[in-house]
Amino acid sequence: MRERVLSGMRPTGPLHLGHLHGVLRNWLELQEKYECFYFVADWHALTTEYENPRRIPDFTRELLLEWLSVGLDPQKSVLFVQSAIKEHAELYLLFGMIVPVSWLERNPTYKDMLQNLEHKDLSTYGFLGYPVLQAADILIYRARKVPVGVDQLPHLELTREIARRFNYFYGEDFFALPEPLLSQEAAKVPGIDGRKMSKSYGNAIFLNDSEEEVRRKVLSMVTDTARPRKSDPGDPENRCVAFQLIRLYTPPERLAEIIADCKRALLGCKDCKQELAERVLEALRPIRERRARLESRKGLLEEIMTEGNRRAREVASQTLAEVRETLWGRPYF
Amino acid sequence: MRERVLSGMRPTGPLHLGHLHGVLRNWLELQEKYECFYFVADWHALTTEYENPRRIPDFTRELLLEWLSVGLDPQKSVLFVQSAIKEHAELYLLFGMIVPVSWLERNPTYKDMLQNLEHKDLSTYGFLGYPVLQAADILIYRARKVPVGVDQLPHLELTREIARRFNYFYGEDFFALPEPLLSQEAAKVPGIDGRKMSKSYGNAIFLNDSEEEVRRKVLSMVTDTARPRKSDPGDPENRCVAFQLIRLYTPPERLAEIIADCKRALLGCKDCKQELAERVLEALRPIRERRARLESRKGLLEEIMTEGNRRAREVASQTLAEVRETLWGRPYF
Repeated sequence: MRERVLSGMRPTGPLHLGHLHGVLRNWLELQEKYECFYFVADWHALTTEYENPRRIPDFTRELLLEWLSVGLDPQKSVLFVQSAIKEHAELYLLFGMIVPVSWLERNPTYKDMLQNLEHKDLSTYGFLGYPVLQAADILIYRARKVPVGVDQLPHLELTREIARRFNYFYGEDFFALPEPLLSQEAAKVPGIDGRKMSKSYGNAIFLNDSEEEVRRKVLSMVTDTARPRKSDPGDPENRCVAFQLIRLYTPPERLAEIIADCKRALLGCKDCKQELAERVLEALRPIRERRARLESRKGLLEEIMTEGNRRAREVASQTLAEVRETLWGRPYF
Repeated sequence: MRERVLSGMRPTGPLHLGHLHGVLRNWLELQEKYECFYFVADWHALTTEYENPRRIPDFTRELLLEWLSVGLDPQKSVLFVQSAIKEHAELYLLFGMIVPVSWLERNPTYKDMLQNLEHKDLSTYGFLGYPVLQAADILIYRARKVPVGVDQLPHLELTREIARRFNYFYGEDFFALPEPLLSQEAAKVPGIDGRKMSKSYGNAIFLNDSEEEVRRKVLSMVTDTARPRKSDPGDPENRCVAFQLIRLYTPPERLAEIIADCKRALLGCKDCKQELAERVLEALRPIRERRARLESRKGLLEEIMTEGNRRAREVASQTLAEVRETLWGRPYF
C-alpha cells in the first residue's frame, strides 16, 4: 500500500508561476508515488482573511479548478475542502486541550507572521492555534509524509509533539508520527520586478492570465540594467531577472545559445523576452486547455469536489471514532 | 413563545447539597418559565481533566440521572450532552478566528483558575479558549438568558463581546446578545467541616449518599465549638456550622424553637443533628425514589439522552447553517 501524504493550500487568490514551480510540480510527482490527500485550507484562510471571508468560496472553487488544470488527478489523489470535513474542527478542539500555550507562542512561524503582517490584527485565538488545526489536518488522515520546506519544519515538529502527547495520555502508538518529505530545493521564480513572485507584490504571472497579459508581463520584465543598449554585452546569469525565468522554460541547447548571444551582444532583450513569452505560453497551454475542458462540462467540478470530500470524510470520521474511543475509554458520543 | 435559557454543568463527579441549593433549585424554577437547554459540558470538563478523561462518560450518565432525579423534566427542558453536538466545535473554531488573545488573557476567571489550581498544568490552548467554547455553547442555541452568579458576569460579557464582533464582521443583528439572569443569592451550603461544600474538600453530602452516610456525615458536622457541654448556652446563628444546614431544612416555627432551646442550653448538639439528619433524608427521599424508578427502567436514560441530543442538534445545525451562510456570504459547506 502506498504511504499517505497530506498537503494543503489556502484559497486566498489565483495561482501563479511561483505556485506552479514551488508546489504543484512537486505535488504532481508525489501523486505518482503516494496516496495523496490535497486539501483547500479554507478554515486556515480565515486566520488572515476573517474580516473579508466572502471571497473564499470563489477562491476555493478556483483553486480546485487550477489543481485539476495542472494535472492533479482525482482518480489518483483525494482533493477536498477542509471546512467540508467537520471532524477537523472536533479534533482541533480535542488537541487544544492538551497543547500548552507556550508551545504555540514559541512557534517561529507565529512570531514571523505576526511581524510580517503588521497591518492585520493577527493576534487572534485562531491564529495562535493555527498549528493545532494543522496537526488535526495531518493526523486525522493518519498521513505518514508531509511535504515541507526547511522553513516549515518547526510546524511539522509541533504536529509530531502533539501526536506524541496524545499518545502519551490516551494510547501508546495511537498516532504514527508523520515524517517530513523535504522537497528538493524548488526553483526560485522571480516576479516581473525581480522580487519573489507574489500576488501581494503585484509582480505575478498567473496561470489563468490571458495570452496578452502573459506577453505584456514577460516583456515588462527587468533585464540586465547594466546593458542599456543591445550593442552592450550582457551578463544574463548574474544580472538579468528575465533570465531566471528563461532558465526554467528553455531547453538546454537553446539556453546555451542565448547566454552566448547575450554576452556577445548579438541578442537583444526585447527579442529574447518575446521568445520567453512564447515558451511560457507554450507551457501554460495544456493547463489552459484542460481548464477550458473542465469549465465546459457543467457540474463536473462540483462532482469531483463532492467525491473528494466523501473520500476524505470516510477516513476522517473513522479516525475520529477511534480518537473518541481511546480518549473516553469506550464508545461515547 | 418562552424565552430560551442555556446553562450547563461539567461532569466531574457526583452532585452534592451545594449543587442542589446553589444551582438545581434555580434550574427547576427556570424550567417552569423558560424554554431551558441544560447541557452536560463534557468538552469543558476536558480543560481540567484531560489527563484522566475516562471517568467522564460515567459522570455524564450520572449527571443526567441526577438532573432527572431532582425533577428536571425532559418534556419541559432539553437535556443534552455537549460533545454529542459536533456543531459546538465548528462554531468554537469559527469564533476563535475573530477573538483577540488579549480578551482571553484579561478574563478574570482565567487568571483566578490558573492561580487556584496550581497543581494542574492548565496553561493549555483549550483552557485559554474556554470562554470561546462557552460563547459557542450559548449562541449556537440563540439563548436569550443565561443564569449566572455575579462572579460569572465577566464570562457572559465575553460571550456578548464575541457576538457583537461576529455581528460587526458578518451580519448586523445576526446574534441577539444574551442577557444575564442573575439568580437571587443562592443559599450558602456549608460542608461538614464548615468550609464551602465541595467534592475536593472531602466535606460534601452527596445526593446519592446512602442513608447511613448521610446520618454519619450530618452527625459529624461542626457545631458551636465554644459550647463544649450541653449545659452551656449556644449561639447557633453565629457560631454553629450545622445550623446553616438546619436553616435550610427546618420549617420556621420549629427553627425558632431550636434557636431558643439551643440558647437556653435545653437542646444538645447530638439530638439537634439527629433531627437535621432525618430532615435532610426526608428532603432527599423523593430524589432517591425518582432515581430508583429511573434506574429500574433499563434504557430509559439513554432514550432521554438521545431525544435531548436530537432536539439540541436540530437547533444547533440550523444555527450553523445560518452562520456559514452569513460568514461565507452564500451557501457553502
